[in-house]
Amino acid sequence: MRTDVPLDRAYRLLNHGPTVLVSASHGGRVNVMAAAWAMPLDFDPPKVAVVIDKSTFTRGLIEGSGRFALNLPCRALADLTYRLGSTSGHQVDKRADPGLPIIEGRTGLPLVDGCVGWLECTLLPEPALQDRYDLFLGQVVAAQADSRVFRDGRWFFDEAPQALRTLHHVAGGAFLSASDLMQATLPTR
Amino acid sequence: MRTDVPLDRAYRLLNHGPTVLVSASHGGRVNVMAAAWAMPLDFDPPKVAVVIDKSTFTRGLIEGSGRFALNLPCRALADLTYRLGSTSGHQVDKRADPGLPIIEGRTGLPLVDGCVGWLECTLLPEPALQDRYDLFLGQVVAAQADSRVFRDGRWFFDEAPQALRTLHHVAGGAFLSASDLMQATLPTR
Repeated sequence: MRTDVPLDRAYRLLNHGPTVLVSASHGGRVNVMAAAWAMPLDFDPPKVAVVIDKSTFTRGLIEGSGRFALNLPCRALADLTYRLGSTSGHQVDKRADPGLPIIEGRTGLPLVDGCVGWLECTLLPEPALQDRYDLFLGQVVAAQADSRVFRDGRWFFDEAPQALRTLHHVAGGAFLSASDLMQATLPTR
Repeated sequence: MRTDVPLDRAYRLLNHGPTVLVSASHGGRVNVMAAAWAMPLDFDPPKVAVVIDKSTFTRGLIEGSGRFALNLPCRALADLTYRLGSTSGHQVDKRADPGLPIIEGRTGLPLVDGCVGWLECTLLPEPALQDRYDLFLGQVVAAQADSRVFRDGRWFFDEAPQALRTLHHVAGGAFLSASDLMQATLPTR
């Protein structure tokens, strides 16, 4: 059910503010961390911004490889998301987690299976920004989504199982999810 | 029902990825624009990042005054949010919109009444970042929330009227909202 998303629609995957899993690999190590602070930065070519703390193991993999992926977990992956956000690759090899199925992305980046969206990115190196604000920018070079919930450049969560809704982290492993699509209207002129 | 949010909890207002209204004033003009691309950037002191396109009228107000506010609209304000995102202060004086009630924030910034969260910010000037990526950083100097849905540093949407849930923009005035709080669990050790 993973289907390619045209690059000029890739920003739509992040537009509604989901929590993400950041995955990267370098020098034989793969790691995945949770991040609530990610957003689109541009439409076409699509760019993203994500905050990656200096204490994270993933940061070294991104700086070493110049690449990272943003995976969008759904309610079915809430425990995994919380677990990945509560441990560090400095202490444990997360690939040993039997609940973390890693698959290969379009560009060879490690992706988390069972997510509902994936953005593979090339790091836009901004060393001063990375150092001062822990802010990492990337250009999206491949995007995919689960067609059960993302079609024609839009999310449709209400007709699919609740387990496929994106996660929106409140605090301490408490997550909201996105649903109840509504259409706002403009005044007639 | 507007109550102050301690600054070290202010990031929690944005943590789940809501669409925001950006408000600012300068030289006698007030403007409000919609922005889906905003996120927390730091915990304490709290900082935020928001993308403000060069075409927007609000951008000049922010650069002129060095200040801006992020307002969090709820479902009751979906039409207003879409309308504010579909017109420009270059063409119309949005203060003339009878559906846009402006109130004064803790630091004198114009805020949108009827929202469920408010973050008043001082611009952290980063001219290269603003020019190259349209990315604006701010330090939060005051925060408030509607206590019916935000208490003790956390969102509680499920027990309140649906009209008070935050908006998460999909595209073209279609909004998801955040609800169905769930608690993820960690393995016992």
